Amino acid sequence: MSRFLTEKYALLTPYTPGEQPKDMKYIKLNTNESPFPPSDKAIAAAAEAAKTLELYSDPECRDLVSKAVEVFGVERDEILFTNGSDEILNFAFMAFCDATHPALFPDITYGFYPVFAELGGIPYKTARLRDDFTIDLDDYKGHKGAIFIANPNAPTGIALSLAEIEQIILANPESVVIIDEAYVDFGAESALSLIHKYDNLLVTQTFSKSRSMAGARLGFGAGCKELIRDLNTIKYSTNPYNVNRMTMAAGIGVLCDEDYTKQNCQKIIENREYTKAKLKKLGFTMTDSVSNFIFAKSDKISGEQLYLTLKERGILIRHFSSARLCEYNRITVGSREQMDALLDEIKRILEETV
Amino acid sequence: MSRFLTEKYALLTPYTPGEQPKDMKYIKLNTNESPFPPSDKAIAAAAEAAKTLELYSDPECRDLVSKAVEVFGVERDEILFTNGSDEILNFAFMAFCDATHPALFPDITYGFYPVFAELGGIPYKTARLRDDFTIDLDDYKGHKGAIFIANPNAPTGIALSLAEIEQIILANPESVVIIDEAYVDFGAESALSLIHKYDNLLVTQTFSKSRSMAGARLGFGAGCKELIRDLNTIKYSTNPYNVNRMTMAAGIGVLCDEDYTKQNCQKIIENREYTKAKLKKLGFTMTDSVSNFIFAKSDKISGEQLYLTLKERGILIRHFSSARLCEYNRITVGSREQMDALLDEIKRILEETV
Repeated sequence: MSRFLTEKYALLTPYTPGEQPKDMKYIKLNTNESPFPPSDKAIAAAAEAAKTLELYSDPECRDLVSKAVEVFGVERDEILFTNGSDEILNFAFMAFCDATHPALFPDITYGFYPVFAELGGIPYKTARLRDDFTIDLDDYKGHKGAIFIANPNAPTGIALSLAEIEQIILANPESVVIIDEAYVDFGAESALSLIHKYDNLLVTQTFSKSRSMAGARLGFGAGCKELIRDLNTIKYSTNPYNVNRMTMAAGIGVLCDEDYTKQNCQKIIENREYTKAKLKKLGFTMTDSVSNFIFAKSDKISGEQLYLTLKERGILIRHFSSARLCEYNRITVGSREQMDALLDEIKRILEETV
Repeated sequence: MSRFLTEKYALLTPYTPGEQPKDMKYIKLNTNESPFPPSDKAIAAAAEAAKTLELYSDPECRDLVSKAVEVFGVERDEILFTNGSDEILNFAFMAFCDATHPALFPDITYGFYPVFAELGGIPYKTARLRDDFTIDLDDYKGHKGAIFIANPNAPTGIALSLAEIEQIILANPESVVIIDEAYVDFGAESALSLIHKYDNLLVTQTFSKSRSMAGARLGFGAGCKELIRDLNTIKYSTNPYNVNRMTMAAGIGVLCDEDYTKQNCQKIIENREYTKAKLKKLGFTMTDSVSNFIFAKSDKISGEQLYLTLKERGILIRHFSSARLCEYNRITVGSREQMDALLDEIKRILEETV
């Protein structure tokens, strides 16, 4: 820390992204990336856009918005693209929370929410998940501020139904309810259809997971036009050209290839269920994840030990050290080959452990 | 504005980027873009990176930093890349200013500085440029907060010498002095060499102008490692994957092609001097711009009228409506052909005006 850092950030604890070691080649199942390459249409469009990088990107993302309108069933003024969905989430914390409008989210969820709150000097409350990691809807009633729900939740993969999401929206008319649908395409119901019905709903999505574009950084928020206007005020006061030309082009490309996205999601779902069944046979306990990751623990080996041993052997999974999570690991669902390699290695480790 | 927008942003006035009209094809001399395509090495590297977008970008930008260390003569922990230099500037406002550490910058400079300050709820002071738009160094002494100096300044293009920059650094030991070198490659002296000497200097640069990568969004800050650590704290609390894979690859590509960058800068300098000489003959008054734009006024036609007439005729330049600037226009220096088209049109307009 320098002698110049403003006092309010002296104790700021940044988010810790999943590790990206370069010491050897790993089977990477730790950051919920897709095992499939991006759409050929995305690759081609990005390569073409690279030829005109001397020009700024369109701050209004007009061509991308036109395509998104078709695919997501929103109006032009109901959507805003950002540099990954982290950026739209940060904008939402900035726009809709302050000292008297705290944020509210589950105690176990995406680890960036408390960081955004601390960055913005925003107070926040957490509601404890039940012991089975499910959300108690009674914890989300009459809040005045903003509510952040990852659906499906991370790192558990458990989803609320659309009817339950709607209950939260209805029970909190004085709060913007932000539904973070980073993992929605792997088996949960999207709340996008509700944005025309409620003025206090913001849905965020990312192209990082189901659309194989984590490295492009593209996310969006969708909500009624007044909410989007507010978020645009933040965007144009932060980084008007936040989405670069290549990512914008790749985004249009992948949205022209929805069949490919759907096929990939279907494969991930199949690989997830396959892996869950195999892990169950190996004695693992798992949440009912409808995401592209599995949240699993074994009573034969500690979560940390399994993580460390797999890492030694070239397989990266994600371990969280907090009390309620430390026996589990979050395992990204990859290709069938990756899952088989993982399962083989886990079997070997368990045999050695006994 | 929605009923949910936090009060502190109710009056926020976002930055207005240069217009990007799509109604017709313009000669675009309004956003200081390069008339030259990006380096072939940047294009090829970006296209290659597009094939692996399913993986997150490296939050530490390790390969890009390795290349930057060679080119810019900094250490690895003295540089931080961001999504355009707007992002590093915003981080600097966040990190080094607060209610008791105001920002200080010239009254006429990059229009985003007051927006960043307002976004962060940060008080700021402006020091009036002299009537000839030069900076009075006496205005920058003993400040306690942070000082932002665009060098060369915008929209005037006037630069301070390295000795003058050093005077400001020395006269403000309790402030971080941020030298925004967006336009430095067109004729000013960079302060990069001073970062090893002073712990209160942060130099920011962009790949948007001299490196023909405005559409890729790549900028950086360089300073002593403690300042960079502070800015990393902000980055990792905002958007750890702020720079995407394609931009990172293009950044490495263009840094492998410094001759191309230098040739392009040389051409811009020649075209600038050529255009200035022609405009002078047409009776224009200009600042001594050492940037990739010209700041010019005519006593035969108002700044606004010239801007509007050129726009009607397919040439976009940038007009600012504030009192001290409204007689001028900021004209990006483009290719020789673009400059000749501009000069022809201006000649015609002046003839019609008389």
